[in-house]
Amino acid sequence: MKVACVLANGFEDSEFKQPYDALREAGHDVTIVGLQAGQELKGDKGRETATVEKAFTDVTPQQFDALFIPGGFSPDRLRANPVAVDFVKAFFEKDKPVMAICHGPQILIAAGAQKGRRLTAWKTIQADLKAIGGADVVDQEVVVDRNLVTSRQPGDIPAFIREGLKLLEKEPAATR
Amino acid sequence: MKVACVLANGFEDSEFKQPYDALREAGHDVTIVGLQAGQELKGDKGRETATVEKAFTDVTPQQFDALFIPGGFSPDRLRANPVAVDFVKAFFEKDKPVMAICHGPQILIAAGAQKGRRLTAWKTIQADLKAIGGADVVDQEVVVDRNLVTSRQPGDIPAFIREGLKLLEKEPAATR
Repeated sequence: MKVACVLANGFEDSEFKQPYDALREAGHDVTIVGLQAGQELKGDKGRETATVEKAFTDVTPQQFDALFIPGGFSPDRLRANPVAVDFVKAFFEKDKPVMAICHGPQILIAAGAQKGRRLTAWKTIQADLKAIGGADVVDQEVVVDRNLVTSRQPGDIPAFIREGLKLLEKEPAATR
Repeated sequence: MKVACVLANGFEDSEFKQPYDALREAGHDVTIVGLQAGQELKGDKGRETATVEKAFTDVTPQQFDALFIPGGFSPDRLRANPVAVDFVKAFFEKDKPVMAICHGPQILIAAGAQKGRRLTAWKTIQADLKAIGGADVVDQEVVVDRNLVTSRQPGDIPAFIREGLKLLEKEPAATR
């Protein structure tokens, strides 16, 4: 499966790196998509770095089968840019698999994609989601709602990877 | 006036430093209140540092006349902690002056203090506030709504300082 990983500075180090590695080890083709191609990104804890391979303006959502949104402060930086929000929205419109952890659902809020969904997120974002209403917000390590897999925090990563990989295995690639 | 500046790691450098300096130059007594006394904090851009002088557990809101909430990723870190949210809520309950810039209103959301208020914030937080509803969200450099002064971003700092200082001058200190 071709997976777009949307990333900006201040991503949560392990929430990017561990699922990223697990997706690649499982044979998926992961592309880091960000605001500026070639940009060197640093994790919030300074333990991981990453390079933006493609800018949002260089790709289309149609080129990808699935979406991965790591947490930290990356999602808020991304959602400040309408092109990033539109990119994310397209995966929901086509019911493609989406994995979002921690602050990741902040982009879902910006895309209006949380509406009618059962999901979790970092505790402060759970509170935002509850204040907004219209979503079934639960506090557990991983939530699978059709094509959407969400988790709360670094401690949830093993469950997040397990359910994310399971979802990608179920989905036929590049058929939409 | 005794002003509490609530701060955590990842604050936006200029949104903390410039109003902090201006408040002190105007003769106000500003205390940096955070999650752990003595903690060394770094700004998101690495240009400014600050030391937490008092933990939320070492002080009471009654000891302060006004509140200053800098932006960046500090407000989301703070609002993950209920003691920080309760501290902020107390200033609104007593109608004490509050200055909040950029992501600062994220703590207001956590405290439910945005309800019925006219305010602004960083653009992504404006979108959250609109999605939540119940507040009059405007996109301008500074908004003064009774005891609340809000701004959007670093470029708004001069207007934020001007209106913040004006509000503090109007308020009788330590009378509540």
